[in-house]
Amino acid sequence: MARPALNRQWLLASRPAGWPTLDNFRLEETPIPEPGPGQMRVRALWLSVDPYLRGLMRDVKSYLPPVPVGGVMEGSMVARVESSHVPGFKPGDIVESLLGWQDFAVTNGRGVRIVDPALAPVSTALGVLGMPGLTAYFGVVDICQARPGDTLFISGAAGAVGSVAGQIAKLMGCRVVGSAGSDDKVAWLTETLGFDAAFNYKTEDPAKALTRLCPEGINAYFDNVGGTVSDAVFNRLAEEARVAVCGQISQYNLERPEPGPRLFWHLIAKRARVEGFLVTQFASRYREGLERLARWVRQGRIQYRETVVEGLENTPKAFLDMMRGENTGKQVVHVAD
Amino acid sequence: MARPALNRQWLLASRPAGWPTLDNFRLEETPIPEPGPGQMRVRALWLSVDPYLRGLMRDVKSYLPPVPVGGVMEGSMVARVESSHVPGFKPGDIVESLLGWQDFAVTNGRGVRIVDPALAPVSTALGVLGMPGLTAYFGVVDICQARPGDTLFISGAAGAVGSVAGQIAKLMGCRVVGSAGSDDKVAWLTETLGFDAAFNYKTEDPAKALTRLCPEGINAYFDNVGGTVSDAVFNRLAEEARVAVCGQISQYNLERPEPGPRLFWHLIAKRARVEGFLVTQFASRYREGLERLARWVRQGRIQYRETVVEGLENTPKAFLDMMRGENTGKQVVHVAD
Repeated sequence: MARPALNRQWLLASRPAGWPTLDNFRLEETPIPEPGPGQMRVRALWLSVDPYLRGLMRDVKSYLPPVPVGGVMEGSMVARVESSHVPGFKPGDIVESLLGWQDFAVTNGRGVRIVDPALAPVSTALGVLGMPGLTAYFGVVDICQARPGDTLFISGAAGAVGSVAGQIAKLMGCRVVGSAGSDDKVAWLTETLGFDAAFNYKTEDPAKALTRLCPEGINAYFDNVGGTVSDAVFNRLAEEARVAVCGQISQYNLERPEPGPRLFWHLIAKRARVEGFLVTQFASRYREGLERLARWVRQGRIQYRETVVEGLENTPKAFLDMMRGENTGKQVVHVAD
Repeated sequence: MARPALNRQWLLASRPAGWPTLDNFRLEETPIPEPGPGQMRVRALWLSVDPYLRGLMRDVKSYLPPVPVGGVMEGSMVARVESSHVPGFKPGDIVESLLGWQDFAVTNGRGVRIVDPALAPVSTALGVLGMPGLTAYFGVVDICQARPGDTLFISGAAGAVGSVAGQIAKLMGCRVVGSAGSDDKVAWLTETLGFDAAFNYKTEDPAKALTRLCPEGINAYFDNVGGTVSDAVFNRLAEEARVAVCGQISQYNLERPEPGPRLFWHLIAKRARVEGFLVTQFASRYREGLERLARWVRQGRIQYRETVVEGLENTPKAFLDMMRGENTGKQVVHVAD
């Protein structure tokens, strides 16, 4: 791909109510930025689109500040360093950082990590060897506290996080069951990734499926989805069950919050625990997680899949596809080689 | 009170749908039971009525088996030993155990503890120095993990458990806020028990009250009630908040489960935890809890109140009163001196 003459940037044009559309984004071209003293310029190779970005499109203060209307959309980028006045970074280095949906970015190097291209294709720094992989690792190990012999259920199991979480739980000796939104995804989970069972929540009632597939109850639940799948899970929690709330993607695009059954009552008799988490709370242990994930990928014990959309111009489409569940594994955007 | 010639027993006559009524119970007289080898007979002095008994009236297997229709209603009793073939128990001993709503009971001594009348009035073995006190202690210390400087909020704060929980949290250096169902209860919490603030959830919107009384968020929540009070709390959780789910009394008498807002989403950004618990999971530490509670009661650092109904014949009424929140502190039934 030819080097663009300008920096193409995807801006947040307006805040969505309910499902976002292409109209909520606007492409703008600006001069390619020049790095000042203590800065470097990078060129995007791959961009990441992730469910949490939907939260940043709201005008609500949360754990990350919202993207302002007219601001560059947020998101992780794998990039090549073009020129650098930052010690420790040199032209040609491959890096990963939260630098937004654009061709070029200037950064002082804070929050930028160097990616080793010998380890795996560099796009995996946005997936299995990046935030989604770390989220899966700490969610299963520390929040779910998976134990051998546990039945661990994962909603959104064919996504970037869920697919890794399930394989980690298998490595830990769990019986792993997942839900996903298509028969192809279900087949991938059970035939390729080694899940013990999976079901298509769009064609089978989750309550019935869980009765069928988790007859002895659910010891740990890795929740990416929320909503009716979670409602069914809470009826089947085993004693001292642990629930890791990673995402609630079924709720993100509702124009009006959806009521549901009150679920806390189930927690008392089962002495069960529900815990929300953010991968960033484990920042001091990223090295531990990434080393182990890289080893397991190298050994073939963790497999991954990417759904690739070509071209920065298609980043909003990639984001919307992912929100609709059209990806299997990690959804990425290929920007340059 | 004269010793009855027969054993009066309250049976579960029928299972309630929604709010229980007096018709769900039936008084029966049977011969006073004779203890066999390895057994003892006790005479009830005080009976306990507690919210969890509502759960045992359902035909649902839970952590305790349901009371069968026609069976003696479950519940704790403080009693005097009348005759004993059980080593370690002698006539005149005061004991506490789960022996049901009746004048007399025969037991082999399993799950029976001796109560020291020198410590406090023996009825407290059903309240501050019994299961409710222990529930408060482990809920605040182990599940809420109360820390000095925390804002700890308690729903159902004027009940048997909530009133003790709040005072323990004060001892631990927390700022303690409670909700209750009458202005008199609110005054008791703030003027006598030392709560920093309290509100009447029947006359003030919980969301507004919590905004007013917990401006910096809620670090720990001891939940006895559930429902709309909890909905308001989840909007105000502080980072890394801990929620102890002890009871959900607002939901126990609904004929149809009540939908509510889906709340797990709040847990992610706040990295918060919700944990259900039963006091029995801390059985190995009852001695620790009871010794400390007794010391604090003796020192006047924990105060308690009992709402007393006279006469075994009024036990169902006492239970219904308590379910409607007409008690302040522990609801007990006085059966004999």
